[in-house]
Amino acid sequence: MEPISKNIVFHPGQVSRKDRERLLGQRGCVLWFTGLSGSGKSTVCRAVEARLAGIGRLVQVLDGDNIRHGLCSDLGFSAADRSENIRRIAEVAALSVDSGLIVLTAFISPFRADRALARQRIGSDDFLEVFLDVPLDVCEQRDPKGLYVKVRRGEIAEFTGISSPYEAPEYPDLRLPTAEQSLDQSVDQIVAYLVQRGVLRAPEATSR
Amino acid sequence: MEPISKNIVFHPGQVSRKDRERLLGQRGCVLWFTGLSGSGKSTVCRAVEARLAGIGRLVQVLDGDNIRHGLCSDLGFSAADRSENIRRIAEVAALSVDSGLIVLTAFISPFRADRALARQRIGSDDFLEVFLDVPLDVCEQRDPKGLYVKVRRGEIAEFTGISSPYEAPEYPDLRLPTAEQSLDQSVDQIVAYLVQRGVLRAPEATSR
Repeated sequence: MEPISKNIVFHPGQVSRKDRERLLGQRGCVLWFTGLSGSGKSTVCRAVEARLAGIGRLVQVLDGDNIRHGLCSDLGFSAADRSENIRRIAEVAALSVDSGLIVLTAFISPFRADRALARQRIGSDDFLEVFLDVPLDVCEQRDPKGLYVKVRRGEIAEFTGISSPYEAPEYPDLRLPTAEQSLDQSVDQIVAYLVQRGVLRAPEATSR
Repeated sequence: MEPISKNIVFHPGQVSRKDRERLLGQRGCVLWFTGLSGSGKSTVCRAVEARLAGIGRLVQVLDGDNIRHGLCSDLGFSAADRSENIRRIAEVAALSVDSGLIVLTAFISPFRADRALARQRIGSDDFLEVFLDVPLDVCEQRDPKGLYVKVRRGEIAEFTGISSPYEAPEYPDLRLPTAEQSLDQSVDQIVAYLVQRGVLRAPEATSR
């Protein structure tokens, strides 16, 4: 951490993203997790958050819990509402990146076009797409929220991967096969990538 | 600043707002500025941001520039859209407070009911209503954006204070009569209040 030294005089309107990043000792960015329900988005996000907090990094997790019940509580699961949901999340993430935060978003975000808009809004340098590449049958077997069972019973109409399409990323920045590696391995993979992209410095990231 | 010491081990889902506040050495809160167009919301916000950045505090300013063109670009100026605008701003501010940020919002936010909802969403402890108490004629004389001139020419239909109501706060947390004091005095007043409310520590706030 290299905090802004005390008593720097800023003039109104002069404080920049760079100043905030210097204060935090990190570069703002978004890790945009995408994948089927049950692919491990929330689990990996929370594990990455814990790892980064342990080395003094400021992280914001955006997920269904704090978005769907709040900012997007007026939206449903139609294609139009899913798009608007992703648009708003991208806008919030862009504001947080400007504040210098490392943002982790955990949403299925099934449509390529919506993710492309998010990337465009946030900027390619700051938008890192992380694809949780897990076969549907593995996700269905995990079924952490019991949703696949309900879908098969016909209790949920539109469900990504079954009755609603999931458009896998063609060129994700990072691909995590969570069915083939441990949670720790996934976190290590992400941390190594953040070092490579200049978001984290190597020494701090590897000290544990 | 008392950063989280390096190499603390967090477990997934365990990182809390308190941990983030400890990392930043500050308490998250929202300063919710309200007042007529021309009352000085943006000017005071930017001056407070500069002062706080100078003492190493992490601040997020939400204003028309970064909200109306982004998150709320789909909204107009009808009563319903103004309410939805304020609702979304309150949701974003709540997320940022949870990240430990000091959030400054600069919106007319003319309706008492909307501000009450924002307070409810953010929580009374973290929501500080700052009323820029300036007579309409002073605001009209300042007319920094040339909007009052347009209103008087009949070029703007709904305009707060003239053709659309402004409901002044009855019990604001802070009242700033910006027509009767200098910008520096307004900033001093806010900083003193933040110390009083435990958001800032006295020594850091007064060192300049």
